[in-house]
Amino acid sequence: MESSIKLAHGNGGLENRELIEEIFFKSFKNQLLNGEDSAFIEGGKLAFTTDSFTVSPIFFNGGDIGKISICGTCNDIAMAGGKPKYLTCSVIVEEGFSRAELERIVQSMKKELDINGAVVVAGDTKVVPKGSVDKIFINTTAVGEVIYSGIGSSNLRDGLSILVSRDIGAHGATIFLEREGIELYSSLESDCKSLFPTVKGLIDGGLDIVAMRDATRGGLSAVLNEWADSSSVTIEIVEESIPISDEVRGACEMLGFEPYDLANEGTFLLAVPEEDELKALNILREFNPNAEIIGAVTMEYRGRVILKSSWGTKRFLELPTGELLPRIC
Amino acid sequence: MESSIKLAHGNGGLENRELIEEIFFKSFKNQLLNGEDSAFIEGGKLAFTTDSFTVSPIFFNGGDIGKISICGTCNDIAMAGGKPKYLTCSVIVEEGFSRAELERIVQSMKKELDINGAVVVAGDTKVVPKGSVDKIFINTTAVGEVIYSGIGSSNLRDGLSILVSRDIGAHGATIFLEREGIELYSSLESDCKSLFPTVKGLIDGGLDIVAMRDATRGGLSAVLNEWADSSSVTIEIVEESIPISDEVRGACEMLGFEPYDLANEGTFLLAVPEEDELKALNILREFNPNAEIIGAVTMEYRGRVILKSSWGTKRFLELPTGELLPRIC
Repeated sequence: MESSIKLAHGNGGLENRELIEEIFFKSFKNQLLNGEDSAFIEGGKLAFTTDSFTVSPIFFNGGDIGKISICGTCNDIAMAGGKPKYLTCSVIVEEGFSRAELERIVQSMKKELDINGAVVVAGDTKVVPKGSVDKIFINTTAVGEVIYSGIGSSNLRDGLSILVSRDIGAHGATIFLEREGIELYSSLESDCKSLFPTVKGLIDGGLDIVAMRDATRGGLSAVLNEWADSSSVTIEIVEESIPISDEVRGACEMLGFEPYDLANEGTFLLAVPEEDELKALNILREFNPNAEIIGAVTMEYRGRVILKSSWGTKRFLELPTGELLPRIC
Repeated sequence: MESSIKLAHGNGGLENRELIEEIFFKSFKNQLLNGEDSAFIEGGKLAFTTDSFTVSPIFFNGGDIGKISICGTCNDIAMAGGKPKYLTCSVIVEEGFSRAELERIVQSMKKELDINGAVVVAGDTKVVPKGSVDKIFINTTAVGEVIYSGIGSSNLRDGLSILVSRDIGAHGATIFLEREGIELYSSLESDCKSLFPTVKGLIDGGLDIVAMRDATRGGLSAVLNEWADSSSVTIEIVEESIPISDEVRGACEMLGFEPYDLANEGTFLLAVPEEDELKALNILREFNPNAEIIGAVTMEYRGRVILKSSWGTKRFLELPTGELLPRIC
């Protein structure tokens, strides 16, 4: 075992999972700590989730650390079938940080809270000496009311269809390009968005939602591999059906990453029975025209994700490893 | 208004309060955001609170960042009359941090969770590049079950007695001495402690608890001034009755601080009707022999705290201002 923490331990992929299991799960183990993003408390009536945000740069095309701090946490509640209700907000600010920028960040938070119909009910503000933190980190923690029960990573079974809510990788590619000062793709912006309205649409549409997860750190690859592993099923994805913009493809070529590993902040995967797939697709497309049906659950290689090309080739899509992009969210 | 955030904005005193009111309360305002450490949600059945911990050094005499991260948040629940139940834990770690130290911190957390009868049910782990954070910051957010209702800063009235649960200032003095490398006071250790057992003792004792607050950042001065202000009453404190150890007095002389402004992490103030004061004192002393009755609520100078000496002199105790000690918790 390595004696120090590496950047890869925060990648949302293999090393991240190992660190969490070996250090946190081992000490904290209890019935409610389920390995999902949200826990269910109070007899399953409430969902409870936390996230700390360290994104750099703090302002980026399509969002800022304030917007992402509300979207990210409220999306985890929404993905658990919850209506975001109450949030806490804890801010760690570096001495000398601009007060105007702090106000702008808090206003972004407020705007996004309104979209979710949620409120911040408690908070904490720490100011640390210059050099102790890079600008500003924000933690948000949310309690939501469970309005749809039974969504879970370990519920996948043969005969389900897998859908994605929009084209993938926009957040990861945007942050990378901004960090490198590359302005080739001025139309590229983060997908950072509150997903509760879309989820509400799916629930109101009467769909049988088996699994749902936003593809944040570790991207599409991390979610699909976690699902295949937790449910001991095969997830077969048709590579050409995955929506990817030209801008994201271009950024991936520069990065040397696969778009499947790139972080998203307002893009989710959905598993529904095959007979519901068109209904689900139509609802998803009301919110984003790039939603697609991308694959299905089978049983051939349990615990694995398979990418199939139109030429008939197949390869495994692995859980991401390595450093990926630190401070992506 | 200043254009950048200063260390004083995180002091738990005057500047901190102004920053929170002007930036956070203004944007987030809603019925549940009450200015107390915990919010009451779900019709008052649950208490909800958050804290981020940035303490330096991360290991200190009497505790570490793990212990303080559970004590601090669970104590906020306990002070609201709540039984800590569910916590989230979000850790931001600097690349290269020692894995063994992380394990030691998580084990401290677990030990303290057990004292509170609480569990961590969800978490988040971020690893940031070297220099983006100083070692490790931890956020914990808790939901507790309200077992005693009606405690609040604005409920104080004429005829109450004010008690303190033990001698004050030990945490602030310990951190200061360790940071400066002063080892004169080897017996001095932080008061960092979970307060739920003491609070349970008070509740089980059938006391009428009017107000209760742990004296963290900003110390005794901050809590008493907030109470006097929120309730529009005078709090008269008999200076000689405030328990202060010789070690803390000595550290204060070096620091140039008043012990009343020093942070505590397991010391609280309690307001009860005068007829309950001895009963309350006896219960507090079961948990710490240094508990004392230190004053009373009157109405002469509304919104102010008065320190009375045994020679008959009186002075106002002000809300702390200035930098105090950054990264104290």
